[in-house]
Amino acid sequence: MTNRFSIYFQLSAAGEHAAESLAEWICLEQSAELPADVLSAEYRNTFCGHLVRMKQISETVWETEISFPVLLAEKSVSQFLNVLFGNISIGDGIRITGIDWHKWPMFKGPKFGVQGVREALGVFGRPLSCTALKPVGLSAGQLGKRCFEFSKAGIDLIKDDHGLADQMTAPFSDRLKACQIAIKRAYEESGNKGRYFPNVTADGETLIRNFEAAAAAGCEGVLISPHLIGLDRLRELRNHKADLMIMAHPAFSGTLTGNEFHGLSHRFLYGELWRALGADFCIYPNTGGRFPYTPEICASINEGCRDEKLPFASSFPTPGGGIQASQVEEWIFKYGNDTVFLIGGSLYRSEEGVGAAAARFSGAVRGIQ
Amino acid sequence: MTNRFSIYFQLSAAGEHAAESLAEWICLEQSAELPADVLSAEYRNTFCGHLVRMKQISETVWETEISFPVLLAEKSVSQFLNVLFGNISIGDGIRITGIDWHKWPMFKGPKFGVQGVREALGVFGRPLSCTALKPVGLSAGQLGKRCFEFSKAGIDLIKDDHGLADQMTAPFSDRLKACQIAIKRAYEESGNKGRYFPNVTADGETLIRNFEAAAAAGCEGVLISPHLIGLDRLRELRNHKADLMIMAHPAFSGTLTGNEFHGLSHRFLYGELWRALGADFCIYPNTGGRFPYTPEICASINEGCRDEKLPFASSFPTPGGGIQASQVEEWIFKYGNDTVFLIGGSLYRSEEGVGAAAARFSGAVRGIQ
Repeated sequence: MTNRFSIYFQLSAAGEHAAESLAEWICLEQSAELPADVLSAEYRNTFCGHLVRMKQISETVWETEISFPVLLAEKSVSQFLNVLFGNISIGDGIRITGIDWHKWPMFKGPKFGVQGVREALGVFGRPLSCTALKPVGLSAGQLGKRCFEFSKAGIDLIKDDHGLADQMTAPFSDRLKACQIAIKRAYEESGNKGRYFPNVTADGETLIRNFEAAAAAGCEGVLISPHLIGLDRLRELRNHKADLMIMAHPAFSGTLTGNEFHGLSHRFLYGELWRALGADFCIYPNTGGRFPYTPEICASINEGCRDEKLPFASSFPTPGGGIQASQVEEWIFKYGNDTVFLIGGSLYRSEEGVGAAAARFSGAVRGIQ
Repeated sequence: MTNRFSIYFQLSAAGEHAAESLAEWICLEQSAELPADVLSAEYRNTFCGHLVRMKQISETVWETEISFPVLLAEKSVSQFLNVLFGNISIGDGIRITGIDWHKWPMFKGPKFGVQGVREALGVFGRPLSCTALKPVGLSAGQLGKRCFEFSKAGIDLIKDDHGLADQMTAPFSDRLKACQIAIKRAYEESGNKGRYFPNVTADGETLIRNFEAAAAAGCEGVLISPHLIGLDRLRELRNHKADLMIMAHPAFSGTLTGNEFHGLSHRFLYGELWRALGADFCIYPNTGGRFPYTPEICASINEGCRDEKLPFASSFPTPGGGIQASQVEEWIFKYGNDTVFLIGGSLYRSEEGVGAAAARFSGAVRGIQ
């Protein structure tokens, strides 16, 4: 018997017959890509999708489980993504909410995960604080100075803004050097040990060169925007022999979840799929910030990052934006301790100066008001 | 003065003030990612987006041109995609319709292009015919047999279905060998010289290994699904020293254009961007097939592939689906000679048998009814 895995959908259709037709179409489109009438029953039994169950959950939405043969997709992330949402991405009314992760040994989940990150950082029983070095256009020295201020102020994780890449104003290698020196000096002066996560996102082999340079410079983690360079690059870094934590950023991914009736659910993409591929930290835009995310969307991503039914370590949800130092206690109450709070623009806006604002924020995250 | 390039948007908003706010937000979000009030006028002048012009084109849509400094994005496709549509992909009401391609020497366009493909194939003054080997699950030998039938029937380009990757039922190397033998035999028996384009899409270095194996086996082109593995991989193959034609498939890309108010326009993504990255052939789902594409969408992609204002060679639009042999004349009239007509399922459905149906289709494309 064929080894099969299930994909869970929410299908939108005008009625039961239309919903069934859509499910049958998915069964064929994501396997044989041929009409049913040119395929033998035996072929369909072995190689095509099978409709396992459908349940109407609203006037126009059916929760639907379809199983596919693992062999269609098992050798690579690209084959997997193609069976998951290749041609049907061009359709409509098809939203993916989950899959059977336990059928997928190629997905190992985060190398550190929540527990591993806590052990590596020596931080327990509280959330983590994070901020972004910006803006692009500053020199490596200027960014290093900001890194020093943030680290001295007690911020746990200081990442590059995802827009800092290898611009001539602050080339990757110069920035890496300046920020690692800043981290060391801040520790010597204050006893606060911040970690600098450089943005290693780059085309082709440059990604790996940047990652290895980060490891050689003593970084303990990196930032990557997997949708700019291919989702499998995230897994590639996770499987690299250098043990660095990985923080994933959602740049260029927005349309994948942008329509509530078609795409990948937020929970599935930013929680489960990124976690499966190896993200220790999953950045998403927090509700109340600059992006149209509801409290329910944020809660669902947090759940996906932490769901214990998934067969790998959990990830830190990393909500960014919409967070002020004065509201941190409230956010901790809502999101729990296993969260990284990412604060950006509002630190720069503070009248008390960036360093003092960062100290207030990191203090709030540590529970020191 | 900063070297700038423009991005052209259609912004949807409830009124002029909201549209202007959205434009101002894009200027900052895609550069400094900081609020305006913490940035100096000099910084904004040098590094941020500048609103060049806005023009209302309907009650809720404004055509908008915003210029960004080239230096933010010039070193890699990932930096480019980030400035183009990184964070704002998570927004709403932002549709990209074009950019100033002549500012981008890193985009070289297709290596062959329409003229180069015609010279390589020795086919002039008519469209090209194309079909897909399928379904997944057949052995390499069975797929080779189909390749033989199609080639003997006079089909110009015989590509793998994009779902054929490296499944155990027909591993990539076995399939490559079987299909290249089939092409050779068909030529010896019939004088018809078909070209087999294997699907080289794969994670990491396997993509390059597959591409080089295809070149070594005497293939003249390959198929790639760039959205499954990262858009820059298309440019990487285009810049490879082996001169193979490249056919791009839209798997996993659907949501990028899926909402008429937010995303990349079909013309921009499947015409211009793929062409800029090096696609000689741009596959899209033809209107009247299994996907919700209108005649206007298809016409716009054709225009993007051929627009002479772009500073590189043109690509072949390659509409697939919704095409019957009996309607080919009509499609040629609509789409013109510089088109590749991709026929799939309907060949397999024909009562006269696959070989005879393929001969009728290839004959129709050659103008022999």
